[in-house]
Amino acid sequence: MHVMIIGAAGMMGRKLALDIARDAALAGRPVAQLSLVDVITPEQPTDFNGKVVTRSGDISRPETAREWLSSRPDVIFHLAAIVSGEAELEFEKGYAINLDGTRHLFDAIREQGQSEPYKPRVVFTSSIAVFGAPFPDKIDDEFFLTPRTSYGTQKAIGELLLADYSRKGFLDGIGIRLPTVCIRPGRPNKAASGFFSNILREPLVGREAVLPVEDDVRHWHVSPRRAVDFLTRAATIDLQLVGHRRILNMPGLSATVAEQIEALRRVAGDRAVNLIRRQTDPQIEEIVAGWPRDFDARRALQLGFVADASFDEIIRNHVEDELNGALA
Amino acid sequence: MHVMIIGAAGMMGRKLALDIARDAALAGRPVAQLSLVDVITPEQPTDFNGKVVTRSGDISRPETAREWLSSRPDVIFHLAAIVSGEAELEFEKGYAINLDGTRHLFDAIREQGQSEPYKPRVVFTSSIAVFGAPFPDKIDDEFFLTPRTSYGTQKAIGELLLADYSRKGFLDGIGIRLPTVCIRPGRPNKAASGFFSNILREPLVGREAVLPVEDDVRHWHVSPRRAVDFLTRAATIDLQLVGHRRILNMPGLSATVAEQIEALRRVAGDRAVNLIRRQTDPQIEEIVAGWPRDFDARRALQLGFVADASFDEIIRNHVEDELNGALA
Repeated sequence: MHVMIIGAAGMMGRKLALDIARDAALAGRPVAQLSLVDVITPEQPTDFNGKVVTRSGDISRPETAREWLSSRPDVIFHLAAIVSGEAELEFEKGYAINLDGTRHLFDAIREQGQSEPYKPRVVFTSSIAVFGAPFPDKIDDEFFLTPRTSYGTQKAIGELLLADYSRKGFLDGIGIRLPTVCIRPGRPNKAASGFFSNILREPLVGREAVLPVEDDVRHWHVSPRRAVDFLTRAATIDLQLVGHRRILNMPGLSATVAEQIEALRRVAGDRAVNLIRRQTDPQIEEIVAGWPRDFDARRALQLGFVADASFDEIIRNHVEDELNGALA
Repeated sequence: MHVMIIGAAGMMGRKLALDIARDAALAGRPVAQLSLVDVITPEQPTDFNGKVVTRSGDISRPETAREWLSSRPDVIFHLAAIVSGEAELEFEKGYAINLDGTRHLFDAIREQGQSEPYKPRVVFTSSIAVFGAPFPDKIDDEFFLTPRTSYGTQKAIGELLLADYSRKGFLDGIGIRLPTVCIRPGRPNKAASGFFSNILREPLVGREAVLPVEDDVRHWHVSPRRAVDFLTRAATIDLQLVGHRRILNMPGLSATVAEQIEALRRVAGDRAVNLIRRQTDPQIEEIVAGWPRDFDARRALQLGFVADASFDEIIRNHVEDELNGALA
């Protein structure tokens, strides 16, 4: 099988590539080739015996996807996106990458199918940012889309395109709405949701982190480990079971900032918690106020997607995966 | 006030232009200029004392909207679209007009605002085709979007763009999801929903009409008169009352084909009803099976939008408006 990851230089793309490379398989199915593409050339995974191709390109240009897709991968993960904070500040760039880029990709697949039959599995990562306040305490599988950011708008449009191109038989698409990934490893990025990770990741290595919202803010989370599981499951699930509604709310862990902090205290003690500096940011508060807090993700649970059990587990897994098991 | 109608050569566009021209006003507000644009040059209304500009152009080209919008109209009605049946058959054309055309229009407005402040009211006609089966018996204001046609997908994307461009302050957008307009005057078009009108309009003038679905098919209708009312109300309503959720399900009349036929019998007798020829069309049946049948359009009702009272009234109004009051 030939697997392509678009957005392979990003955090989730790297984790997914490493996971596939380590097993030389995708949910048990052998992978012979990995194509890793992004706006910058992704790193080569070292422990993979199959063929690896890495490429860079600008997906806002239609030629880029056309060129990438000429290798006709069997499975395509489309993870590339301008994140929420940046898409809000740079209106045209957000639409160019998140809307045009996605459409160019789907059109390149459709064009491949015009010369000879081609219908790859496409896993599109959407986001809970497609929802906007006010909403019920728990959002169910049939709640409507009212994004309150350009990023959420662009993801919602990507979902609609994926469903229509699937319905027309151009591709086998499935979209998964990921909770906010927490704890994101690495350095802070421009996502408005970054602080949910910062307040755990930074204190774990003895660094200060800023909390720009109140402690009672509730949010919907998934660990990087579970998010990789979601992606590989989506890539291999029987789409007959999913039906024509191809976009799924992923299960997650609903927690307040206070609950995150108490889990940090249990795992890493008061010294870590004391590194969290409270400094409210009205712009972040406003964006976060428009985000969902909890879901009833029934369809995805029935299809076997499994959420994290607790923030204690999320923090301990982060320490194991990113810090070689050592606390600061 | 300067009013532009995009799609002014279409059925709704013509009716709306005549309505505004007759009153030289839009819901009571004086109109000094009417700009009527479409892919073909729209007719000039004869009974209007203000300035009329008519233009033709292809909205799938960004220059077209840019040129049209340079006159900076105060109110823009965006009615232009490739209809459902045609968008299903001609995939690229549907996306070029319904998605790209809409986006070029909104971007041309945004660009006008970059030189000096500009924020027109934009009324976008969406459609109940944004919903897809299965759905509840009555669809409420928070039901989710799962279009099962490319046309419905393109309208749903237009809604998302309208909301985001409004949120960013580039325009004052409002989207109305029209029920199927019935009785459509004129000749049959390529819309898959055309038969709902054909089976009434054609027999009223002594012509045969084909019914391609079963009698128990239930659907959601609005007369052309009420649809014009919806448009003018949307153009002048206080958007503070609407809030940030700018897309409204319009109220309508839910009726079965059998109920339509009985209304025809009451107004025009058995002779008219006998001109309906039953000939099922599996392709039409499949498309129609994916369409909504009834709504709880609470928000729009609260905002003062009013539906037709009965099909008898719809048929009698058609006879008055289109046939000078005379039955065949």
